[in-house]
Amino acid sequence: MDETVLLGHGSGGTMMKRIIDEVFFSAYAGSELKQGNDAASLPTNPQGRLAFSTDSFVVTPHFFPGGDIGKLAICGTVNDVATSGALPKFISCGFILEEGFSVADLKRICASMAEMAEEAGVHIVTGDTKVVNRGHGDGVFINTSGIGFIPEGVDLSGAYCKPGDKILVTGTLGDHGITIMSCREELSFSADIQTDAAPLNHLIADVIAAAPATRCFRDPTRGGLASTLNELAEQSNIDFVVDEDAIPVKDAVRGACEMLGYDVYQVANEGKMVCVVPADQADAALAAMRANKYGADAAIIGEVVEKPADRDPRVSLRTGFGSLRIMDMLVGEQLPRIC
Amino acid sequence: MDETVLLGHGSGGTMMKRIIDEVFFSAYAGSELKQGNDAASLPTNPQGRLAFSTDSFVVTPHFFPGGDIGKLAICGTVNDVATSGALPKFISCGFILEEGFSVADLKRICASMAEMAEEAGVHIVTGDTKVVNRGHGDGVFINTSGIGFIPEGVDLSGAYCKPGDKILVTGTLGDHGITIMSCREELSFSADIQTDAAPLNHLIADVIAAAPATRCFRDPTRGGLASTLNELAEQSNIDFVVDEDAIPVKDAVRGACEMLGYDVYQVANEGKMVCVVPADQADAALAAMRANKYGADAAIIGEVVEKPADRDPRVSLRTGFGSLRIMDMLVGEQLPRIC
Repeated sequence: MDETVLLGHGSGGTMMKRIIDEVFFSAYAGSELKQGNDAASLPTNPQGRLAFSTDSFVVTPHFFPGGDIGKLAICGTVNDVATSGALPKFISCGFILEEGFSVADLKRICASMAEMAEEAGVHIVTGDTKVVNRGHGDGVFINTSGIGFIPEGVDLSGAYCKPGDKILVTGTLGDHGITIMSCREELSFSADIQTDAAPLNHLIADVIAAAPATRCFRDPTRGGLASTLNELAEQSNIDFVVDEDAIPVKDAVRGACEMLGYDVYQVANEGKMVCVVPADQADAALAAMRANKYGADAAIIGEVVEKPADRDPRVSLRTGFGSLRIMDMLVGEQLPRIC
Repeated sequence: MDETVLLGHGSGGTMMKRIIDEVFFSAYAGSELKQGNDAASLPTNPQGRLAFSTDSFVVTPHFFPGGDIGKLAICGTVNDVATSGALPKFISCGFILEEGFSVADLKRICASMAEMAEEAGVHIVTGDTKVVNRGHGDGVFINTSGIGFIPEGVDLSGAYCKPGDKILVTGTLGDHGITIMSCREELSFSADIQTDAAPLNHLIADVIAAAPATRCFRDPTRGGLASTLNELAEQSNIDFVVDEDAIPVKDAVRGACEMLGYDVYQVANEGKMVCVVPADQADAALAAMRANKYGADAAIIGEVVEKPADRDPRVSLRTGFGSLRIMDMLVGEQLPRIC
């Protein structure tokens, strides 16, 4: 096998066949992928609806504490599919490789994808590989799309939040964004900052079982908690209030944010969910989260409240001093290419 | 709206919301996309199986005679899904934009995608946008993934070819690859060379209706006819023989290939299908192709034959002089980034 990616690896010919066999198939091919047709033929959802989501991953560096671009590519799409309440089943994988990229690194990335797919219980069933000339890419970009089956009766949406509902997060915020930032700037704040990337589909299924009236899940990736809460408030046309003291943030992450001037609520996460649940099921949802290894630090952080009719939806943060300040959606870009 | 793409357009915050609203939603948003959830919730296939395929598009230039990268992105995935015999239904769309890319060009590309999606009868239901720093991309890369519904009883595969089957193509070969090449090198061979990119799902459905025992479809994109035939021969573990005189190629394309030293059978197509059909249904399949506007130049180009047990599958070309020569799969890369 060649040591670096060459243009011919994207040709559709024998060199492409070789990289597919030796890198992709050897990492994660099941029977569907190996059939070698242009489209995978898959079983349908016997009852209920389909969930479909897509995400491209362009993070730099490609490897960082706790994970790599391949781990993000699987977990990100698994989580997006799972936010609908679906059980993620099938993943597609499209690589855009830059000529000269290390084949050894590509194999490491694929091994990481295979490991995450196995943990999540999804199958990589179809793929595509393109190679761009040196200087026209950045080593590796990965697109994953995912299909999940939504069980009959499950219907979640960011538009379903109602006054009185509780807002939960599944763990500490800001870990992923600060990990990438530290890595890129060669800062070392603390040994215990690493990406939180994780497949959360099992956690989500457990929460839905424990709290069947759950309104929605949303993963606070780019734009962080602040953007996610603003999106949900706008979708439901309602106000949110969250308590600063209740929001879990690691000391090392908070310190790094203060030093660098970042708002931790706008920093990206890759293994966390925001969840809105009716008040009478909030404790059950919280207990289900905490019972999962990725939800040990879960917390109820606030609630949904009535919105005055004469203005747009708003997210407010109740500070440690008891005052309310508006929690704005991210404007512009503070940490580019964190996923 | 800004005139060029900025890093903030990929932030997850308000700038990203603006580009989504003003560019993507205004071009092609239906109700699913506008719901704004991370995964689209879609109806399932009531009977039969799902087809799932993915493709990334990195072609340069982005605009060329007869089409653009957006047209390829929709047609390519529609066609890949349709090769399984599925009726394509849902498309995801992931953009990787380079900082500084023209928003006007992006709008043109999205308009082209919307037009092709409408012709094909598919809905763009979920999407993602990433922005990479200047110098780390090439203007725009697009990934599309597609879901189709395979009707009950339809079962196509490249592994199903049998001795005696006829091999058909739906039209002239090499048009797309030579169009891109001419454009890139600023050659002008002839005014009538333009991309053949087209959504072929309706043509495929018509052929299956007319010739229900059809074995398979495969679109001869990267690697051209030669790579596609070799792939199918290998999947079915059998030999193929095709007749040079029967293979439709435009004079201008043949001339350009001769001048530049390309093998026209290895040049990419974006709106053609190779199809294998039992002999007794080949005329019906041909008539169905020719009745479609994208199949006017369809032809029966050869047949599937027994393979000696002691060697690997082989594709042979019967030349105009009656001799047989081996039609090899493309080795390496002759025309990078044609899709």
